[in-house]
Amino acid sequence: MNTSPLFPKVKGLLHGGDYNPEQWLDRPDILEEDVRLMKQAGVNTVTLGVFSWSVYEPVEGEYHFEWLRKIMDRLYENGIYTILATPSGARPAWLDAAYPEATRTSMKRIKNLHGLRHNHCITSPAYRKLVKKMDERLAEEFGSHPGLILWHISNELGGECACDLCAEKFREYLRARYHGDIQELNRAWWTTFWSHRFNDFSQIDPPVAHGEKSIHGLNLDWKRFTTVNTRDFLEAEMAVFREKTPDIPITTNFMHLYAALDYNQMAKPLDVISWDSYPRYGNPDVSLYDCSVENAFDHVTMRSFKKDRPFMMMESVPSLVNWHEYNKPKRPGVHRITALQAIACGSDTVQYFQWRKSRGSFEQYHGAVLDHLGRSDTRVFRDVEEVGRILKSVGEVAGSVVKAKAAILFDWDNRWAIEDAAAFSNKTKKYEQTCIQLFGLFVKNGVEVDLISSEESFGDYRMIVAPMLYLLKPGVAERMKKFVEGGGQLLSTYITGYVDQSTLCYLGGFPGDGLTELFGLYTEEIDTLYPKEQNAAAFLEESPIQGTYRIRDYCEIVKPLTASVLAVYNDDFYRGTPVVTAHSYGAGKAYYAAARLEEAGMEAIFRQMWQDAGLETKALPPGVEFHRRIKQGAAYDFYLNYSDEEQTVEPGTAVDLITGKAVRGKAVLPPLGVMVCRVQP
Amino acid sequence: MNTSPLFPKVKGLLHGGDYNPEQWLDRPDILEEDVRLMKQAGVNTVTLGVFSWSVYEPVEGEYHFEWLRKIMDRLYENGIYTILATPSGARPAWLDAAYPEATRTSMKRIKNLHGLRHNHCITSPAYRKLVKKMDERLAEEFGSHPGLILWHISNELGGECACDLCAEKFREYLRARYHGDIQELNRAWWTTFWSHRFNDFSQIDPPVAHGEKSIHGLNLDWKRFTTVNTRDFLEAEMAVFREKTPDIPITTNFMHLYAALDYNQMAKPLDVISWDSYPRYGNPDVSLYDCSVENAFDHVTMRSFKKDRPFMMMESVPSLVNWHEYNKPKRPGVHRITALQAIACGSDTVQYFQWRKSRGSFEQYHGAVLDHLGRSDTRVFRDVEEVGRILKSVGEVAGSVVKAKAAILFDWDNRWAIEDAAAFSNKTKKYEQTCIQLFGLFVKNGVEVDLISSEESFGDYRMIVAPMLYLLKPGVAERMKKFVEGGGQLLSTYITGYVDQSTLCYLGGFPGDGLTELFGLYTEEIDTLYPKEQNAAAFLEESPIQGTYRIRDYCEIVKPLTASVLAVYNDDFYRGTPVVTAHSYGAGKAYYAAARLEEAGMEAIFRQMWQDAGLETKALPPGVEFHRRIKQGAAYDFYLNYSDEEQTVEPGTAVDLITGKAVRGKAVLPPLGVMVCRVQP
Amino acid sequence: MNTSPLFPKVKGLLHGGDYNPEQWLDRPDILEEDVRLMKQAGVNTVTLGVFSWSVYEPVEGEYHFEWLRKIMDRLYENGIYTILATPSGARPAWLDAAYPEATRTSMKRIKNLHGLRHNHCITSPAYRKLVKKMDERLAEEFGSHPGLILWHISNELGGECACDLCAEKFREYLRARYHGDIQELNRAWWTTFWSHRFNDFSQIDPPVAHGEKSIHGLNLDWKRFTTVNTRDFLEAEMAVFREKTPDIPITTNFMHLYAALDYNQMAKPLDVISWDSYPRYGNPDVSLYDCSVENAFDHVTMRSFKKDRPFMMMESVPSLVNWHEYNKPKRPGVHRITALQAIACGSDTVQYFQWRKSRGSFEQYHGAVLDHLGRSDTRVFRDVEEVGRILKSVGEVAGSVVKAKAAILFDWDNRWAIEDAAAFSNKTKKYEQTCIQLFGLFVKNGVEVDLISSEESFGDYRMIVAPMLYLLKPGVAERMKKFVEGGGQLLSTYITGYVDQSTLCYLGGFPGDGLTELFGLYTEEIDTLYPKEQNAAAFLEESPIQGTYRIRDYCEIVKPLTASVLAVYNDDFYRGTPVVTAHSYGAGKAYYAAARLEEAGMEAIFRQMWQDAGLETKALPPGVEFHRRIKQGAAYDFYLNYSDEEQTVEPGTAVDLITGKAVRGKAVLPPLGVMVCRVQP
Repeated sequence: MNTSPLFPKVKGLLHGGDYNPEQWLDRPDILEEDVRLMKQAGVNTVTLGVFSWSVYEPVEGEYHFEWLRKIMDRLYENGIYTILATPSGARPAWLDAAYPEATRTSMKRIKNLHGLRHNHCITSPAYRKLVKKMDERLAEEFGSHPGLILWHISNELGGECACDLCAEKFREYLRARYHGDIQELNRAWWTTFWSHRFNDFSQIDPPVAHGEKSIHGLNLDWKRFTTVNTRDFLEAEMAVFREKTPDIPITTNFMHLYAALDYNQMAKPLDVISWDSYPRYGNPDVSLYDCSVENAFDHVTMRSFKKDRPFMMMESVPSLVNWHEYNKPKRPGVHRITALQAIACGSDTVQYFQWRKSRGSFEQYHGAVLDHLGRSDTRVFRDVEEVGRILKSVGEVAGSVVKAKAAILFDWDNRWAIEDAAAFSNKTKKYEQTCIQLFGLFVKNGVEVDLISSEESFGDYRMIVAPMLYLLKPGVAERMKKFVEGGGQLLSTYITGYVDQSTLCYLGGFPGDGLTELFGLYTEEIDTLYPKEQNAAAFLEESPIQGTYRIRDYCEIVKPLTASVLAVYNDDFYRGTPVVTAHSYGAGKAYYAAARLEEAGMEAIFRQMWQDAGLETKALPPGVEFHRRIKQGAAYDFYLNYSDEEQTVEPGTAVDLITGKAVRGKAVLPPLGVMVCRVQP
Repeated sequence: MNTSPLFPKVKGLLHGGDYNPEQWLDRPDILEEDVRLMKQAGVNTVTLGVFSWSVYEPVEGEYHFEWLRKIMDRLYENGIYTILATPSGARPAWLDAAYPEATRTSMKRIKNLHGLRHNHCITSPAYRKLVKKMDERLAEEFGSHPGLILWHISNELGGECACDLCAEKFREYLRARYHGDIQELNRAWWTTFWSHRFNDFSQIDPPVAHGEKSIHGLNLDWKRFTTVNTRDFLEAEMAVFREKTPDIPITTNFMHLYAALDYNQMAKPLDVISWDSYPRYGNPDVSLYDCSVENAFDHVTMRSFKKDRPFMMMESVPSLVNWHEYNKPKRPGVHRITALQAIACGSDTVQYFQWRKSRGSFEQYHGAVLDHLGRSDTRVFRDVEEVGRILKSVGEVAGSVVKAKAAILFDWDNRWAIEDAAAFSNKTKKYEQTCIQLFGLFVKNGVEVDLISSEESFGDYRMIVAPMLYLLKPGVAERMKKFVEGGGQLLSTYITGYVDQSTLCYLGGFPGDGLTELFGLYTEEIDTLYPKEQNAAAFLEESPIQGTYRIRDYCEIVKPLTASVLAVYNDDFYRGTPVVTAHSYGAGKAYYAAARLEEAGMEAIFRQMWQDAGLETKALPPGVEFHRRIKQGAAYDFYLNYSDEEQTVEPGTAVDLITGKAVRGKAVLPPLGVMVCRVQP
Repeated sequence: MNTSPLFPKVKGLLHGGDYNPEQWLDRPDILEEDVRLMKQAGVNTVTLGVFSWSVYEPVEGEYHFEWLRKIMDRLYENGIYTILATPSGARPAWLDAAYPEATRTSMKRIKNLHGLRHNHCITSPAYRKLVKKMDERLAEEFGSHPGLILWHISNELGGECACDLCAEKFREYLRARYHGDIQELNRAWWTTFWSHRFNDFSQIDPPVAHGEKSIHGLNLDWKRFTTVNTRDFLEAEMAVFREKTPDIPITTNFMHLYAALDYNQMAKPLDVISWDSYPRYGNPDVSLYDCSVENAFDHVTMRSFKKDRPFMMMESVPSLVNWHEYNKPKRPGVHRITALQAIACGSDTVQYFQWRKSRGSFEQYHGAVLDHLGRSDTRVFRDVEEVGRILKSVGEVAGSVVKAKAAILFDWDNRWAIEDAAAFSNKTKKYEQTCIQLFGLFVKNGVEVDLISSEESFGDYRMIVAPMLYLLKPGVAERMKKFVEGGGQLLSTYITGYVDQSTLCYLGGFPGDGLTELFGLYTEEIDTLYPKEQNAAAFLEESPIQGTYRIRDYCEIVKPLTASVLAVYNDDFYRGTPVVTAHSYGAGKAYYAAARLEEAGMEAIFRQMWQDAGLETKALPPGVEFHRRIKQGAAYDFYLNYSDEEQTVEPGTAVDLITGKAVRGKAVLPPLGVMVCRVQP
């Protein structure tokens, strides 16, 4: 267990956020007040430079960094460190006027006009050259500033571009992928269907609605290419800093389960993972607990990209955002518990977008520590101060990590392939929600679980859940077999192993690529239920699992070969046929849930699996989330009570880091209460 | 009664479907298995070549037909006939690269990129030339193949193109239609309104949302032109085969009530009508019976295009499709009853899209006889086998037809004009649904009815229903009068005779063009009801029809001249004014239903009309559909029980062709049971 | 009180409508019939020439006015006056063919094709030149015709154009607005956010979705520019007539609360305000009374543009329109009461679109006095005749006006800024509905109220309601203070004073620009409620206002400084904090309603304000609307009973102008009954 804090210079956890002083250069009084209030709020880090290009370089070739140096100096003198962003996320007007190729082209093949953010061609050599020059200047100017702790590349990289430059780069990608052999591509994309065979790579365009959108292989390869090209853009920016400031780590901020980029790929070159967290707290249709479990799913996805170190919550908000359907302020106590949830899940930072609200433009109402009101005697400011105090008192958790013995497979390729599949019902595929729901059962039972790509090693896990793994990458089926053979507990579900990496269906029975052997069954049909329809899974008397559970959306009709039937359908023409099976395979066991069971049904199966895998569950009161972070010689237990009522937890012998008091046995958490306990590891 | 089977070479009814062996040329084992299993399933015909261009001609001018010949040969040797399609429905990539004019232009005037299907310019001389060359090659290569029984032109012709070539051809069409006189067009389109007068045909463009969409005459003529041009494309393809293989009949497959082409026009040049049937069986909001009545409407529409011969169900599916909102497999027994429904309605074929599922691309999950699983011991394969057996046992019905003494008028021009009318409510016009609902009353009462264009002869009918005949083509009103005068029973409804063929309103009272005289009334106002509003029609004590019936959506306020009032409104300010009238005219009677009555109300009127027309109704149990096919010396009665319960029918003295047993008097049909009885004609 | 009728030539009130005889030039019988029936219907004015360009000038430079002269002559001889429209609202086909620049370009930057109406570039010099030439010809031909009483410029001016000409004119507008200083613009638009700084005006484009839509200042200035440019177009047309026919007044017809043009600006150059009224009468979800109150809001908005003279209801319909979701005819009596409502609110005209239905094209089913039926013995014609008779009997009200002592502020800038604000919830902002709802409380209590821009003088009012005045124009806050200081009663609400005219947020507390001092409080947070959430305002025991009232949508959390708390929140974490406050300021009082209270709550506050302002309320029966028009020496009280029941009103000593009988004390109005009483002023 050899972990260390992300930023040795900064003592403990980071607290701070995006800071845009360039908006207030004509208000030195405000800039002074900012530093005073940051200290009051326990802020020790800010992110500067996000979207600052037009101030850095107001006219091409004319650089202005003096204002930034002055601010970084003053912050540093006041104990506040700087994360410095590159400004490539938005371009000044002069740049688009001088380099029209830099502007993005939509999938309708319409070239955007200047404006917005995230509106650059991902390929454009001209733009990349300008970005490189800017990054070199930043590295030179600030690379050795003592306050600098991290480079932050661009901002929330995303989107896609279908301009001629990107289209040509896509063709190059395809040439490489298919070894320059157009027939290999034709086979992979099954283009004989609808006479879609290509004679040459030059005939291929990005998939567009007014052209070709009906080839799943093309659609999927385009998604992959966009990730590859965006990562290429990212790495091109990183290269400047790798060369000039090899000791400064680098990140870029991710977004909540962002569908358009495979974050598994994007994460690889980074030193630190960071992401922006904006759940819809206060939505009356979702309890705070459920909303937080969904947020935990995101935290854990991020954490799992780099399991050996903490991640960063780069953006969050102490009050409200301005872009939800209904923009509600966080209720009292919500900011505290959600800030601590990030830490509990493995973040070493609580950062905000933004420190101070802009006076104008698109995010003028996005919440901030400081409002237009400008006062520190507000509820929001006091909430931030409190979080600052708590972060200080639990500072020793910095550098510790969460270790899980179970994993849920969650693949971007699979998201894309399921989303694009012309089958089932587009209204009920719900791959992400299904993963989140199963993840929630781990949270509910206090079992730590990672969220990993099917390409990652299964070696350290005792239990793996692979919901709806529709697309099997090469080798994954084989590795699943080895995992079970070696004693692992595995569960797969309906819509598993239908297609290979090219979205070609496996012949000879689903789940394909040899998985029929692992699960001891094959699928003959799949019934897609209308929302008003349901079925049920009745566990057999002889099964170790008991009960009858509602089924919605999907029912596969399976034929067992060597699997044991645990439960059968209660209804419809396939009544009495298997719905849940188990198959002993080597030293482990492979479960198959052929239908979408309600949570209680999946929990019943999981209980059996946890037990067989030797994973300890924890009896948690309703609405309480638990996590453990560990480091050399210490462990930290987090209890977060999202419920409206007092809840009793059992930390055992521990030190409550927030109060500094010793705890023995039980402890009472008030509504929205948080406890961070140092315990023996 | 001189009818004959469609394809004398094939004994009895056709069973088979689309077959795409070109997808499996590298899998000879699969191709062999296909033939073996086709025979097992009782398949005697397949459709080859749909979308095969890129295999026929992978590079311009380089033809490959050897594979197809080999397959047709082997099929023929095994007793399986071939329907051969022309591949014009989708173009290879090289073609679009070399002949950009071939690609379609949307109504937004944006040229499509290569891709999809049905994406060709309807006019393009270059494309037509290439298609002609291809068709000539096909005719030469396969025209004399002993296994060939039918040419299948393209696939599901449809859509529209607004490129410059099509726009210019549209202007030519208008020049011809309006005798080169732009003032005639101005008068017909009433262009003085909003200053829309044209000085020259060259000023006219296809109707587009960002240009001119407010001239109903323009919109309607564009629809007509698109039919004319698509028929022209079809006939250009047909001409090759007419010349080279005059003895091989020709079809093209239609789609379910496809709105964009007037199938009455498209049907004329064809030898055989064929269509693709994909109802939403299993939708929990629609009973199997109601769903099947709607499907019967489509069957009967198709049957009515060529009343002297059977039609073909060219595509259907034994399990599920992949493009419904929720894709449900057919429940046990549903495939059997729906396959037999096609036969009952006058089809001589049960064909599937498709024989074997593709491994990849857009329809990889569209149901087929053979799944990716590749086994024949599946429920679906057994269902197909059973249908194969039944078709064989009822084979003698081949060539017989349905004869009806009643007709419902159903016009494409009228669909277009009502749809485009800026009046009433776009949410409740429901012309098609209204026709289907009234058709359902005939089915429910076992009365055969045709679905015909108002341009067809009324001569053979005793009763005609003309719902919502908003647009009157020239001569139709006169022929309606003659029909009634000669003793016919006629019913029209609200929104009848408002406009002439140019969508100019009739002056002097609706229904126009002299129909006020026929119905003995005129319309003063029309009230459009909100969905939460209703009214009722109360039949008068002295009326032969009795009862009070709910009204929704539309209430015309009419002034009777010489009509007898049968029912009056129960509500609103026009309470007590006529809603249903009858008018004796010559030897017949003309009914007018001024409002949208619920089904029971319309049924009450129909009962009277059936009686007066001498049409025999049949007492059918609930959920049972009945049809009679006849030929020289024989008649065949079909009973289809869609209900969940046993139903007793009364075939009288007959032979049950499926069981081969004699029947006397009553017979019991199990749920989803089917009976085909040979009876004395 | 020195007012006079709008058109001294016409005796009494105007009755008539749009008349398009050019559609019937080949039907002289119809043209003769028209005049006969106009006289029968009491029509004394028609509007000619709307959209007549292609008849005036069928080929460029070839003018045909003879037909129009003939018709105007005949009408005049029969006592019917003419309003003559310029035809610039729609262009003939030849014009677009010859001058492509005249066609509009959408905000997607796609140039429209010829067609539709309102499809001209607002800037196009070529088009303006052609319009000028046409207007000069009209002025010369008809300027001295004795039947001409008013010029009607174009028709329902509206929309926007984003072509290069308009974009360049927009830049000129910005250069002028920001004194040629791009940095002033950068500051006003807060462009440092997201690096959006401009170096030069030439870099700015109209705001488009595929370019820049995220700068609120840009969006708002574009709206302002569109109004300025459209007014410029209007004034360019007017200039011709001002020069050639200085004695003929000029109008253009406005549309119901049309959002895209600031009618306050558009109204200024006009001599008379006219507008087109098309409420959704008969919608079962809205009572006739509520629908009429909303229509009264429109009438009063129009009336308030020129408070010293009557306005015109230029278009309305005696039956139904053809473009509502459900097109329902007016029920019996509805035409009478709604026609009289226009008069009651200050209109001197009841005019229709249209006299006779067109035979074809887009509005062939738009209601008219004469139907395609062509008969005058219809319900609709008789309703129009009755209105004609009534207008004659109440003719003496012509020239009188309504005088109000209260005003509601209703600003177009504010509509645009709230609409564009990225905050709160786009589903519940409802600025217009909120204004209408508060206006309805005045109607319900018989208190006349004006609807004015915040830029208008507050001098004559005793009470001002300023709901959701999000954007404060320069000087408005100061004038609000002076108004209260001088004894006025003022009420503002949540979402007031957040931004200045550039949409920059006020620093130091909302409501900004000094209004915290006026209201004695500042806003700390705003809670946006989901639709299923609510709160309540509980008035304190010591408050002069009593009761507890439901709150929806918005709750500001305010901090009182010197204000008195009248009511507090009942719920949520801000329970017990102030929701309604009052602040004595100088001789008046400033109320603040921090949340969206239900109507009864606002009415309770208003009652107190009316009392303190010395405004007399009137006890009206439910469903009855009241207005008083006055002129030198006379006053006219209108009672309109929208309810389904008889209602008793109290006109006192009066003469019922419709019956001509004297009234004393009470009078009974039948359902939909109308009473116009001459009383002592």
